Amino acid sequence: MPLVLYERLCADDRRPSPYCWRARLALAHKGLSPEIRTVRFTESDLVAFSGQAKVPVLVDGARVVTDSWEIACYLEDFYPKAPSLFDGAGGRALARFVNHWVDHGLQKALSPILAPYMLAAVDPDDRHYYRQTREARYGESLERVAAKRAVYLEALDPILEPLRQRLGESSFICGERPAYGDYLAFAEFQWARTICDQDILAPEDTTLRAWRHCMLDLFDGLARSVTAYDTAA
Amino acid sequence: MPLVLYERLCADDRRPSPYCWRARLALAHKGLSPEIRTVRFTESDLVAFSGQAKVPVLVDGARVVTDSWEIACYLEDFYPKAPSLFDGAGGRALARFVNHWVDHGLQKALSPILAPYMLAAVDPDDRHYYRQTREARYGESLERVAAKRAVYLEALDPILEPLRQRLGESSFICGERPAYGDYLAFAEFQWARTICDQDILAPEDTTLRAWRHCMLDLFDGLARSVTAYDTAA
Repeated sequence: MPLVLYERLCADDRRPSPYCWRARLALAHKGLSPEIRTVRFTESDLVAFSGQAKVPVLVDGARVVTDSWEIACYLEDFYPKAPSLFDGAGGRALARFVNHWVDHGLQKALSPILAPYMLAAVDPDDRHYYRQTREARYGESLERVAAKRAVYLEALDPILEPLRQRLGESSFICGERPAYGDYLAFAEFQWARTICDQDILAPEDTTLRAWRHCMLDLFDGLARSVTAYDTAA
Repeated sequence: MPLVLYERLCADDRRPSPYCWRARLALAHKGLSPEIRTVRFTESDLVAFSGQAKVPVLVDGARVVTDSWEIACYLEDFYPKAPSLFDGAGGRALARFVNHWVDHGLQKALSPILAPYMLAAVDPDDRHYYRQTREARYGESLERVAAKRAVYLEALDPILEPLRQRLGESSFICGERPAYGDYLAFAEFQWARTICDQDILAPEDTTLRAWRHCMLDLFDGLARSVTAYDTAA
């Protein structure tokens, strides 16, 4: 039976979910081409069979796997002959740390920069839901959040420094070849470029820009091929 | 020939340098017990033979290795039969990312909290040097930096979140056993406890406290055994 990946769809065929990009890139790394089924914010009943409401959901024959980290581990364990996502037990353990750093560091810093663009990107039917949940998170209107973009960009800058340092000495976060640690971080930049016409990286941020360029080239330009803004190309 | 590790010494036999603790713990992980030779801030001529002025410096027979990361890699490569510091190529690559996250995230957030205590901890002869270099970094007197301790502690809190998340699901950052990723992060907490009588972790930060406790127990209480404050025990 074919592999199926359920992923988030927004307006204009945009696919911004960084969690879904983690799964997409992990599948490509393993040489797997799933059938993609889309789920809008208000269509979570489409993945109710998985026992929860979030995407990505991977279906592999009779197996259903939820949560991007669980999907990566599933692919690593069930497709051991394909290229490794972690390069060993130590790599898996620290990729999980990178996962938490992305979620609670990088993504936390990016979210207020991108939330106003997400509001425009989600389907019109989903906007009320999106505005309500995000304004509850930030404690103010998304218009006020948008007005502070420069402040949030300044706060993002030092968060990126460990990435800059690592990529200043190695082609990829995971070494000479990309692996799951790279997909975790890159998925956030992919989120940005699918919805935001203002690049989150300054022109002089050459190290991160070069890495992002390489990541966009991977797997025959998989991440580059989707509807997105050219600013980050 | 025996192994020799040159490490920083401060007043009252205190050994605060996190870079030196990385090396000490990496050596212990490999089952190696180096002779320790101490270097005060103003005694960098003692390591001039290494071609630079910083500690740690490892001397292994005819080999001289500087820089804590280079020391870890040297130990991994030259003592391959001892327990691994990285658990594979992926673990080494991402440990280097963790290294940069510690240097540019965790340590950057900790430094202004600990700098006033370091001023008291360094040898009286070193204080002028220490004050000058740190006040240049922070752009104000260390007394003013000390007065903002609560602000800096509040800024540290979200930086620790990836550690909390990781240690909420695993005994150590590197999995069921500690490895170099743990030593990188723990060395910062060890720095704190060797010089600061105020714990940097709140009583309710139970996950991080439990991990720190385990780290202090390692290698027959190696990190616990040195001159330090009990607050973090």
